[in-house]
Amino acid sequence: MSSLLIFNQLKFIFMKKLLAEFIGTFWLVLGGCGSAVLAAGIPDIGIGLVGVSLAFGLTVLTGAYALGHISGGHFNPAVSIGLFMGGRFEGKDLLGYIVSQVLGGAVGAAVLYLIISSSADFTGLGSNPGAFATNFYDANVYGVNFGLVGALVIEVVMTFMFLIVILGATHKNASPGFGGMAIGLALTLIHLISIPVTNTSVNPARSTAVAIFAGADAMGQLWLFWVAPIVGAALAGVVYKFMAPNNN
Amino acid sequence: MSSLLIFNQLKFIFMKKLLAEFIGTFWLVLGGCGSAVLAAGIPDIGIGLVGVSLAFGLTVLTGAYALGHISGGHFNPAVSIGLFMGGRFEGKDLLGYIVSQVLGGAVGAAVLYLIISSSADFTGLGSNPGAFATNFYDANVYGVNFGLVGALVIEVVMTFMFLIVILGATHKNASPGFGGMAIGLALTLIHLISIPVTNTSVNPARSTAVAIFAGADAMGQLWLFWVAPIVGAALAGVVYKFMAPNNN
Amino acid sequence: MSSLLIFNQLKFIFMKKLLAEFIGTFWLVLGGCGSAVLAAGIPDIGIGLVGVSLAFGLTVLTGAYALGHISGGHFNPAVSIGLFMGGRFEGKDLLGYIVSQVLGGAVGAAVLYLIISSSADFTGLGSNPGAFATNFYDANVYGVNFGLVGALVIEVVMTFMFLIVILGATHKNASPGFGGMAIGLALTLIHLISIPVTNTSVNPARSTAVAIFAGADAMGQLWLFWVAPIVGAALAGVVYKFMAPNNN
Amino acid sequence: MSSLLIFNQLKFIFMKKLLAEFIGTFWLVLGGCGSAVLAAGIPDIGIGLVGVSLAFGLTVLTGAYALGHISGGHFNPAVSIGLFMGGRFEGKDLLGYIVSQVLGGAVGAAVLYLIISSSADFTGLGSNPGAFATNFYDANVYGVNFGLVGALVIEVVMTFMFLIVILGATHKNASPGFGGMAIGLALTLIHLISIPVTNTSVNPARSTAVAIFAGADAMGQLWLFWVAPIVGAALAGVVYKFMAPNNN
Repeated sequence: MSSLLIFNQLKFIFMKKLLAEFIGTFWLVLGGCGSAVLAAGIPDIGIGLVGVSLAFGLTVLTGAYALGHISGGHFNPAVSIGLFMGGRFEGKDLLGYIVSQVLGGAVGAAVLYLIISSSADFTGLGSNPGAFATNFYDANVYGVNFGLVGALVIEVVMTFMFLIVILGATHKNASPGFGGMAIGLALTLIHLISIPVTNTSVNPARSTAVAIFAGADAMGQLWLFWVAPIVGAALAGVVYKFMAPNNN
Repeated sequence: MSSLLIFNQLKFIFMKKLLAEFIGTFWLVLGGCGSAVLAAGIPDIGIGLVGVSLAFGLTVLTGAYALGHISGGHFNPAVSIGLFMGGRFEGKDLLGYIVSQVLGGAVGAAVLYLIISSSADFTGLGSNPGAFATNFYDANVYGVNFGLVGALVIEVVMTFMFLIVILGATHKNASPGFGGMAIGLALTLIHLISIPVTNTSVNPARSTAVAIFAGADAMGQLWLFWVAPIVGAALAGVVYKFMAPNNN
Repeated sequence: MSSLLIFNQLKFIFMKKLLAEFIGTFWLVLGGCGSAVLAAGIPDIGIGLVGVSLAFGLTVLTGAYALGHISGGHFNPAVSIGLFMGGRFEGKDLLGYIVSQVLGGAVGAAVLYLIISSSADFTGLGSNPGAFATNFYDANVYGVNFGLVGALVIEVVMTFMFLIVILGATHKNASPGFGGMAIGLALTLIHLISIPVTNTSVNPARSTAVAIFAGADAMGQLWLFWVAPIVGAALAGVVYKFMAPNNN
Repeated sequence: MSSLLIFNQLKFIFMKKLLAEFIGTFWLVLGGCGSAVLAAGIPDIGIGLVGVSLAFGLTVLTGAYALGHISGGHFNPAVSIGLFMGGRFEGKDLLGYIVSQVLGGAVGAAVLYLIISSSADFTGLGSNPGAFATNFYDANVYGVNFGLVGALVIEVVMTFMFLIVILGATHKNASPGFGGMAIGLALTLIHLISIPVTNTSVNPARSTAVAIFAGADAMGQLWLFWVAPIVGAALAGVVYKFMAPNNN
């Protein structure tokens, strides 16, 4: 094959990876935020925060088994960056992955918006913190305002531990095949802990996707849900590389 | 062996597959719709929509591990069609599978009907949308009427993603053995999101099974729960075939 | 080795199997019934029937992975009989297994009784149907009385499907290792469906264990929770043997 | 290599193990106790005791897959002692593991304390039994006081069964890879049963971590949550060694 043909084929494979990241992040936002918006608050039989936590985790668990063998199954810019810092993901794919994740998430949010706006009762999302499953800080959504410090700490620490699980459960010494289960259920766990503090981000693409539709207040707080997850993820990459024998 | 003997043996194997599909879809309807009808709404300690979502998913998870090695474990006409479109299921078995699924589901609904009608308090199912766990559109069952558009969109998209998970998690590159878990939990996730919109079908056999007993109103809306899941599933077959390397 | 030595060694291995069945059924009763008695009905934050269903299933899931390689992990006389009918368990061990299961379950119930009776507030179990997590029929415990027919049908069908899952998920063609997960979660699913009808037995040892402590009313209804599960299990053994290719 | 070099390398590997135990126990306390403190009691949609049970179990499940191949994934002094008694863990590492676990748990509690104290509404933890997710005995936290006997019995028996699951599911005859799932879900099950009695310890490091911040009352009851789990775990080590063929 000529160089041009090889280049074209590589580009095509790269496109398939990006499509997988797009679909996976679409699923994460539609499933996770969708369960929160549509089903959490129904009186008496609603799924509550347990159901939302389960939903977020299962989007990643199902996406990992379905799409992980195509793209690695990141579905999250912080995950891509953490894997890069941990020496498990090549820098040349980083930008493409992040763009695909943000776009996929945004389309997931758009489909959710289409569904709720199809209701004759729909009068807009309102601008309360947390509306349309947006992330927030320094607001009292679930009974306590944990402030900016609480939000920063929880997002950094939760993303740090998310990446420790991801790097550890996909390490060559780990039990083969169980990574997708452990990683998906780690996201469930993270939501069980931290929804009351920030609605749980640990994923800039998820935060951006719903903020676009929720408007100015959510967009104004979006910086924290890029900065804190990326800091936590990058730190985990460095720590894990030190801790694991023969990391690869 | 003579051709006739081979033919008879093949027919016999085919019958075993159809029995497995019959039992699996029986289980899906009895377990999923049964948990909704019997246990969801008990005050204070009822299982709610989280429990119903878990039940639907576990019928498929358990059926997949128990019967998947006999029939492939479809239990759903949309799944059979999506696998056919994705090049994973032969057209010659399609009709037999669909008939077995519809019959199995109907018997599951009949057993559920027998159990509830054994109560001296039983006075009929009523004709409210969603009664006997039927699917519905353009009705306010859980507090919001999402209209026909919302119902169509959610059923197409949820079945699309269900098939992406099925095609992906059973791909030759996927982690062996984990397919049944990922697929069952995908159905749980789908219910966590979409019960409030349509009671969640993504499965024409499940919708048909309970509509038979619930009567004219449910039968009149049944078309959507054949059309939308099949459209979503077929689309996923096409998209997945493009996305996966060396699909088989 | 002399015959006597071999005999003694076999007896010793058999004793280990029986100890494993004893511990597993102890765990099933203490964990499943214990979660129901101790944690289900706490106002606002109690685990409800979802938590009880999860607990019963997880006793079997954890017991299967921990003890299955010693005894096969039955923990249930109906399971031992169903496996025997399906050609997977030798008749010579049947009586020993059943006695161990009943004894283990009874000790589990005794420990639970010891814990609740250690409370200064304890004034006895009362004699309401379902007290101390006993099984019942023809009684209104959760809002509806499903009658004797409803109880018989649900116990036969649920145990039938439990054995289909057990026989299928441990078949030589099934995904290795996943049996314990599928079987445990099948028991969770069965409880999600059928607690409101009979408190869910599908296990004569579990029913017997708590009936001993609950007294005459529960003992008088115990026959159904031996007959129906055994009928359902035996039937599944026959059906599965027909359905599976090269059953073993 | 000279002896000194080998010694230094072994020390380094040992440090990595201790770091893994530190992080895993940090995660167990922050995740399990954090979900209880932050998310359990939110009106209507809070995660309740089912969510807390799930969270504790998932800290261990995720930690086991991520860190188990580095340190064995104990995260609990009682587990280390039970594995030592069962012949699966060398005595020379015991003290280092226990110190790392207690320190990691304490840092997890400190991060949780930092997050809740970042709220402007925060006025201290109070000194009620169970505050800050502390363990307790002879107190009425969830509606019934089970007394000292009930607390001792439940902590001994639950830790006994936790170790039976750990020893059994990681035995060389058990299904490879499934140990982390079975062990994590065993901890979920244990919490589903026993939170109402003691807030569930089965882990002296977890009990110590939060007692440090909760003050004198919790510290005064801490002895039970070292004694009972260690007794139960050690007993399980002895029983399992007898029961399992060719234990290793």
